[in-house]
Amino acid sequence: MEKLTVLKVGGAVVEDTQALDAFLTGFAAMPGLKVLVHGGGREATKVAAQLGIQTKMVDGRRITDADMLRVVTMVYGGLVNKGVVAALQARGVNALGLTGADLGCMLAVKRPVKDIDYGYVGDMQKVDTSILADLISRGVVPVMAPLSFDGKGTLLNTNADTIASSVAKALAERFEVTLVYCFEKAGVLKDPDDDASVIPLITKESFAGLASDGTVSGGMLPKLQNAFEALESGVKEVRITKADAPESGTRIVL
Amino acid sequence: MEKLTVLKVGGAVVEDTQALDAFLTGFAAMPGLKVLVHGGGREATKVAAQLGIQTKMVDGRRITDADMLRVVTMVYGGLVNKGVVAALQARGVNALGLTGADLGCMLAVKRPVKDIDYGYVGDMQKVDTSILADLISRGVVPVMAPLSFDGKGTLLNTNADTIASSVAKALAERFEVTLVYCFEKAGVLKDPDDDASVIPLITKESFAGLASDGTVSGGMLPKLQNAFEALESGVKEVRITKADAPESGTRIVL
Repeated sequence: MEKLTVLKVGGAVVEDTQALDAFLTGFAAMPGLKVLVHGGGREATKVAAQLGIQTKMVDGRRITDADMLRVVTMVYGGLVNKGVVAALQARGVNALGLTGADLGCMLAVKRPVKDIDYGYVGDMQKVDTSILADLISRGVVPVMAPLSFDGKGTLLNTNADTIASSVAKALAERFEVTLVYCFEKAGVLKDPDDDASVIPLITKESFAGLASDGTVSGGMLPKLQNAFEALESGVKEVRITKADAPESGTRIVL
Repeated sequence: MEKLTVLKVGGAVVEDTQALDAFLTGFAAMPGLKVLVHGGGREATKVAAQLGIQTKMVDGRRITDADMLRVVTMVYGGLVNKGVVAALQARGVNALGLTGADLGCMLAVKRPVKDIDYGYVGDMQKVDTSILADLISRGVVPVMAPLSFDGKGTLLNTNADTIASSVAKALAERFEVTLVYCFEKAGVLKDPDDDASVIPLITKESFAGLASDGTVSGGMLPKLQNAFEALESGVKEVRITKADAPESGTRIVL
């Protein structure tokens, strides 16, 4: 099987013009087939504020009412996605911007209301790779916005990490997939304040130890659990690293 | 060659939810391969106003400064394009939203400044159909936003009529193309106030007569001149009609 890298870059990089330029130059230079998944949360907050729409967050998650859905459709699907696509095309990458509605590629269900009504938020259901995989084989680089689709005419707001792992798992049927999460630190760190303390390799066995002795804690725990879940679904390798060094950081394997 | 319809629908239909729903239901039911090109001018004006950005028009053309380029990228590339794609997918059409940057499919040059600086406005240069034509053959329906690309990282604002004729001409090398302009009247009318006075067929010969005796005048003259230009570039037939009746109206042939 051909190798494919699915790389997720967060909102903090996307909204910083200089950081984004540097990241995209690095991404363009990466050899092989690839897919880019981007966030864009803070840019949406900014545009919403300019439009007089208040951003409501619960436990770090955006409440997406009808007005906010319009904003994220404009910002994630338009401003951020097309900006990234244009910048990649200028760097010789044949990028194609996609939301879940395009080619019906990312289907989700609107999250059922329990304690909290998150509004137009989608829980991923199915990634349709039939046309997508062929485009990738032809050298096209899909650039995925964090917007899924309910199949009935409505886009839904979905976390970019979730989009990335869903896309990686689905494409693992056709490619040997490495899933890379780019974030602000150099990898999974022994000392959260020291970028030099990167743990180069985590296996399912070593993870148990790192979790039980408290080396890995907080928000990194679900990240790593999701990583192992992706590996168990056929993804070959997961990497957690800094946006400007997608080929280093922490490698996670079964 | 297989038949293909390239259909352009204007901003007035796109921003009216009911009219758009009716139009998209009709479009989805149209048999055969197809491409949709949409406008969206007034929606951009509305969002710009909400953001405190003033819309400047010269001779009916939007001046696109950096702020307005952000707005049209959000509105044309995000809000309108993805809304149309989602609505078509819900109707069983495998739609794919595109700007000129996606797949590098619509290259343009920034309009040179003469008397007026139109800003980020693009004059169409090349439509790359290499991947596009294959997708169309597989039943994908491209939904094109009125945004072209300079190849150097910048999207450009381009009139949707121009996008439609450029796309139709380029695809005429691979398909037998009918180019349909949907607008608010039933076709080219003998009496502009009477929708029943549609001229069913205009040829190059009859056009000369209609122009010289004043039956066709004003804004319809350049529309028809563009139609003949498209026909001379390989498009098989041009039709000017109402959005809710894309298969009637005025047929224009050489």
